[in-house]
Amino acid sequence: MPRNDAAIVLFSQLPYSLDVSIQSRKLCLVTRPNGDPQATDFELRHTELPRPKSGEVIVAVKLLSLEPAMRGWMDDRPSYIPPVKLGEEMRATGIGEVLVSHSPRFRAGDFVMGSLGAQTHSLIAADRLRAVDASTAPLDVQLGLLSTSGLTAYFGVTDVGQVKPGETFVVSGAAGSVGSIAGQVARILGCRVVGVAGGPAKCDYLRNTLNFDAAVDYKTDGLQALMAAACPTGIDVYFDNVGNPVLDAALRHINQRARVVLCGAISQYNATGGVNGPRNYIALIVKRASMRGFIVFDYHAQYAEACAKLLTWWGAGLIHYRADTLSGLENFHPGLMRLFRGENHGKSLLSIE
Amino acid sequence: MPRNDAAIVLFSQLPYSLDVSIQSRKLCLVTRPNGDPQATDFELRHTELPRPKSGEVIVAVKLLSLEPAMRGWMDDRPSYIPPVKLGEEMRATGIGEVLVSHSPRFRAGDFVMGSLGAQTHSLIAADRLRAVDASTAPLDVQLGLLSTSGLTAYFGVTDVGQVKPGETFVVSGAAGSVGSIAGQVARILGCRVVGVAGGPAKCDYLRNTLNFDAAVDYKTDGLQALMAAACPTGIDVYFDNVGNPVLDAALRHINQRARVVLCGAISQYNATGGVNGPRNYIALIVKRASMRGFIVFDYHAQYAEACAKLLTWWGAGLIHYRADTLSGLENFHPGLMRLFRGENHGKSLLSIE
Repeated sequence: MPRNDAAIVLFSQLPYSLDVSIQSRKLCLVTRPNGDPQATDFELRHTELPRPKSGEVIVAVKLLSLEPAMRGWMDDRPSYIPPVKLGEEMRATGIGEVLVSHSPRFRAGDFVMGSLGAQTHSLIAADRLRAVDASTAPLDVQLGLLSTSGLTAYFGVTDVGQVKPGETFVVSGAAGSVGSIAGQVARILGCRVVGVAGGPAKCDYLRNTLNFDAAVDYKTDGLQALMAAACPTGIDVYFDNVGNPVLDAALRHINQRARVVLCGAISQYNATGGVNGPRNYIALIVKRASMRGFIVFDYHAQYAEACAKLLTWWGAGLIHYRADTLSGLENFHPGLMRLFRGENHGKSLLSIE
Repeated sequence: MPRNDAAIVLFSQLPYSLDVSIQSRKLCLVTRPNGDPQATDFELRHTELPRPKSGEVIVAVKLLSLEPAMRGWMDDRPSYIPPVKLGEEMRATGIGEVLVSHSPRFRAGDFVMGSLGAQTHSLIAADRLRAVDASTAPLDVQLGLLSTSGLTAYFGVTDVGQVKPGETFVVSGAAGSVGSIAGQVARILGCRVVGVAGGPAKCDYLRNTLNFDAAVDYKTDGLQALMAAACPTGIDVYFDNVGNPVLDAALRHINQRARVVLCGAISQYNATGGVNGPRNYIALIVKRASMRGFIVFDYHAQYAEACAKLLTWWGAGLIHYRADTLSGLENFHPGLMRLFRGENHGKSLLSIE
């Protein structure tokens, strides 16, 4: 494999008119997981990219984002996007550099972001990519903060959560890529912020680095009591990334007209015994509250505006961001499992050499 | 007890200035139920009403509404209203006739509606009552359609459900007091209406009397398949009165941006093994859908407007309404259990002689 990688670098430096072929390595889904994804569900394959057609570009992938949602894409059932096909590369959002362009939108050397896939090179329609201005922030900030994770946090807090200054905002998965940004956005917008995470190290991080008002360690006993102590005036907005048991604990403490933002349910994605649904959902009736799901893609038209805000806050030091970066397609599966086991510290990224 | 009842009638015909006392019989909650309420949780007691103070009236109760929500009021836990106190009469909305008035708002002989309680006579502040114009509709229509049940249905469909013409509207507990009106309001507003109820008799009623487009019998096998067949284009609004398993079956078929109206969860109110939460709630994320609870009391300012609409529709024959009326305080507990077992056919009322 190192030899092929070297070859790719070499080819990429040649003008395309020489008509050399570009080899790509890709990580393909070969069996659909039952429960936790296994290493054997994936296979590294080589492929020779066809010549790009008009409107297409070839991108050398630099950095991929690992996301809990990937688990859903592996299942063969209807969802908000089609499942990844067996034998094809895993879907993944990433940043890369344009090698060859048959589109007036990009030139070789431009940085772009889009659904590049778990592969070293991506042949893709230019109109499915957006330009990345690498001068404004490092690539890991671009991909972690100014992409799916940061945008999901931003629209979940502002549009779905409709947070108001002085409200108590609780977020689960609070040390994770979306949760950590969601909590900080809510704090910037004037909320009292409580983060729920697993273990003392993450809780210290929430309190001391992210400046949350309180942190709840869901791995200790007495989640209900901890939640009650952390939210003495109840919960106005609960941003859920994990599902039960934290979801039920939060529902127990919601205030009148509370908003439960359903962003994810990472505790349930690999469940084989059926999802553990929220028993305390009847609180939604008693408290005239709502629980609403959303998909960040729907906010596409407002991405630029949201990215500008996130970048400004990051630049001003108001948003702390950290990446947890592994290297190489071989680490796709281990990286994903770190995410499901909550072992990552910060936004999970995979650099592609 | 018959002797006391006779005495009450006699007393009620005397002018109050004679300073006779009024005896009331009341059904008191004496133990808090665990699971299904038992007959022994209630006790009939006699009490002598004190003289009304300024602003108060004494009302002879005529008709009470039996409602699933009563179960929640028996539990000693925080809710949208305080629990019924042990030793006091059960809370109940009803219609009665003013016997004695120390308020300029009402005169003896006026019909009034309010939280009169499970008793023959109610001493109550006049400003907690609203006038009933007995000339517009019979008392059972006033109490069943133009009160909590009908208003809950109306605001749940219009404000929470935000139904639009052409949408598929599914309601559970569809033969019940709220469900039957909710379905008819949605039909009047241009929806395709599917009702979920238990047993062929109720389903026939939905199809043939209420003119719903389809009916699903949740007591037959294959609820998922029946729901799919009844909703070939999916569900836009689901109005839930019952909870699982119907809630989960509905969540499985919701469309993009569907609205789940959480009105009640009668299947879960007497659960002692814990509530069965909706496992399919993750569909809310995938479909960008929402689930919202509400309490009809919050719409107080719009009651008159809604009642006028319901009355017009009823008068024009667009809303079919039927009452299931038992008689006497002794039938309070049996009537409530009929409701929880789904044995009532129409709005459950209790007439008080």
